[in-house]
Amino acid sequence: MKAEIIAVGSELLRPERSDTNSLFITERLNEIGIDVKAKSIVGDDRATLHALVEGALARSEIVITTGGLGPTEDDLTREVVATALGLQLEIDERIVERIRARFASRGLRMPDINRRQAEVPRGAVVLDNPNGTAPGLWIERGDRIVILLPGPPREMRGMFESIVRERLSSKAGLRRLYRRVLRVTGRTESHTEEVVAPSYARWAAGPGSIETTILASYGQIELHLTAQSPDVVTAETALDAATAEVQALLGADLYSTDGRTMEQVVGDLLRKGSMKIAVAESCTGGLLASRLTDVPGSSDYVERGIVAYSNAAKVELLGVPAEVIEEHGAVSEPTAIAMARGICLQSGAAIGIGVTGIAGPGGGTERKPVGMVCIAVARPGLSPSDSHVRTFRFLGGRGLVKSQASQAGLDMVRRWLLEVP
Amino acid sequence: MKAEIIAVGSELLRPERSDTNSLFITERLNEIGIDVKAKSIVGDDRATLHALVEGALARSEIVITTGGLGPTEDDLTREVVATALGLQLEIDERIVERIRARFASRGLRMPDINRRQAEVPRGAVVLDNPNGTAPGLWIERGDRIVILLPGPPREMRGMFESIVRERLSSKAGLRRLYRRVLRVTGRTESHTEEVVAPSYARWAAGPGSIETTILASYGQIELHLTAQSPDVVTAETALDAATAEVQALLGADLYSTDGRTMEQVVGDLLRKGSMKIAVAESCTGGLLASRLTDVPGSSDYVERGIVAYSNAAKVELLGVPAEVIEEHGAVSEPTAIAMARGICLQSGAAIGIGVTGIAGPGGGTERKPVGMVCIAVARPGLSPSDSHVRTFRFLGGRGLVKSQASQAGLDMVRRWLLEVP
Repeated sequence: MKAEIIAVGSELLRPERSDTNSLFITERLNEIGIDVKAKSIVGDDRATLHALVEGALARSEIVITTGGLGPTEDDLTREVVATALGLQLEIDERIVERIRARFASRGLRMPDINRRQAEVPRGAVVLDNPNGTAPGLWIERGDRIVILLPGPPREMRGMFESIVRERLSSKAGLRRLYRRVLRVTGRTESHTEEVVAPSYARWAAGPGSIETTILASYGQIELHLTAQSPDVVTAETALDAATAEVQALLGADLYSTDGRTMEQVVGDLLRKGSMKIAVAESCTGGLLASRLTDVPGSSDYVERGIVAYSNAAKVELLGVPAEVIEEHGAVSEPTAIAMARGICLQSGAAIGIGVTGIAGPGGGTERKPVGMVCIAVARPGLSPSDSHVRTFRFLGGRGLVKSQASQAGLDMVRRWLLEVP
Repeated sequence: MKAEIIAVGSELLRPERSDTNSLFITERLNEIGIDVKAKSIVGDDRATLHALVEGALARSEIVITTGGLGPTEDDLTREVVATALGLQLEIDERIVERIRARFASRGLRMPDINRRQAEVPRGAVVLDNPNGTAPGLWIERGDRIVILLPGPPREMRGMFESIVRERLSSKAGLRRLYRRVLRVTGRTESHTEEVVAPSYARWAAGPGSIETTILASYGQIELHLTAQSPDVVTAETALDAATAEVQALLGADLYSTDGRTMEQVVGDLLRKGSMKIAVAESCTGGLLASRLTDVPGSSDYVERGIVAYSNAAKVELLGVPAEVIEEHGAVSEPTAIAMARGICLQSGAAIGIGVTGIAGPGGGTERKPVGMVCIAVARPGLSPSDSHVRTFRFLGGRGLVKSQASQAGLDMVRRWLLEVP
């Protein structure tokens, strides 16, 4: 079954307001196997709301609205939905009494305008609102279900949990959604898709009916696999098989199949090997160390970090030979190697990493453009020529160069620890 | 003029994903006097996207889409918009060449599927994307304008700021919004509001009809002042006067009135004083150094940073006396002072900062709970007792403790440099 969500209220169109109700509803719907096809936000505007409700009804079995159930003139949802479904609105005197009692319990008289909140399209089921005056409504018309919920999150959530979820579950049957997030690094979105896409159709036709979405951001690609099945074993088995296929296709470029971030994967590998890491950074300016230490418990394996921006700091703190900088430049593979070796030796850590590059926007030359970053990984006792070193050319502004370089550095550590290229 | 925004991408319908692009676009549209009538989020689903585009075109003069411009099969926006407008798609070979060059600059071959990104509806204006492969499109058809922007926020924002805003402004006419962002630190939202709120009504009634919004996040409060006027001088004069009032009310807690971040403010002060800074971090794990070096040109004033997670590293690298750690603990004001003094002395920097604390989730005790952070600022030649030191108790998880501690550390440097409490 497919659902659409429509949030109603001009205040929701302000630039600082997110519609969090739809996130909650989406999560609950997904749990009972209902997919959300689209969601919209609309102001207190009759014509637009009418058009959106009609459009949603034409496409989807379930339409859920939030908001616009208050007592004032700009609360239009009841009226617009009734019109779209061709239903009469009638005052339900039991609701009037309930609202009146709610006011009375606070020592207040019910204002007349609150009678509007007792208007019910003929045939609708009234959903009690223990947390507010506006009742919800459940309307079935042919094979369509329209559910009107109040806008305040506390009222909407209470009503969803206590009544709506149960009623929808029994309509939706037992099909559930199961999801797997696969994280990829070291190749572009299109290079990933080129390799994986030929399997999409087969997965979709197979058990679990897996749908695949590919998502790209700088330095990282995510494949989202969603299986749909009444049966957890079928779904998980299908997801396992698809994941194994991707693994075979992408090899070590697939770095996470269980939602872990790159810094968590690296941290787990270090912990498993009882190894400590030390970080020498120039252009990433502390970001790589900061990412490593974002992981709870990382003090177990992060030994130290040094941000050596100046050449003097590289020489003094990391023991980079001045002649290496002179001969090859501060941004060069020999300097990166010397940084990695230096931090490794001085700290006694099992693995050292050195990052030097040009984050921009200034400082680039034709031979060494902005975005060029050299990264080296070293272990104690290894000669410079045996250290692992790479030169990258990242695109984007200063922040993106820093984030891609930190990702690439962590990935080099990961591959080294896994002994894969 | 009225606009609608349609965000395209199945991933945007996941329960944990908000569509932040539409908030940015709404803000920018409001600034040039364009109202947003509705916004929608739709998956990579041809029929639904088509229906939403058609509906929006029927109601609103401007339709802006984000996302779905990638090279893969599920990127449908170009095709669906062209169909809805009755326009042919044609490959633009100049775009193919630009994409090919972008791949080549990274030493990569352009996969064939990327040719899709060069498809352009006949008559459309191509909007350059300096930050990615997908160009944007600007299509006028009768009195309707449809603008296709890429989904990645950085690409979308760059394109909006550099081209779209200007083109839309000239369409939208002359009633403009002017905005000022005032950034505050060191007090809570309610304490800020208490002091500033009495002026709101007067500003709203005065020239420029200034509206005030207060926005809070951990460690920072923003006041957004928005003036509305056909006349730039009236608006800017009113904003200047309101800003001066806030300055008088909040004193040094108001740290930015021109959109600069805390790290930019600190960087500008350091540069003005021709001073260098060195950073010794424990619980922030490199984040403070990373924020300082987010600013272009920061290599002029960031001397070095050391992430000393272990006690051994604090002693060895920073010269913290082992007895200080033993007597007071690694998380203590004396240790923070010794860290700041140590990095200052060893680097010869004019100002040193030391941060030590418990980022959590583990490691807290009753006397030293998670979120307790000691921060010290030192200058060469100053005795320990003259160093500036403070102990904070931050709320929130590990990431929030790190970010609040980095903000507080930068703010202590700022106040020291300004010689204000």
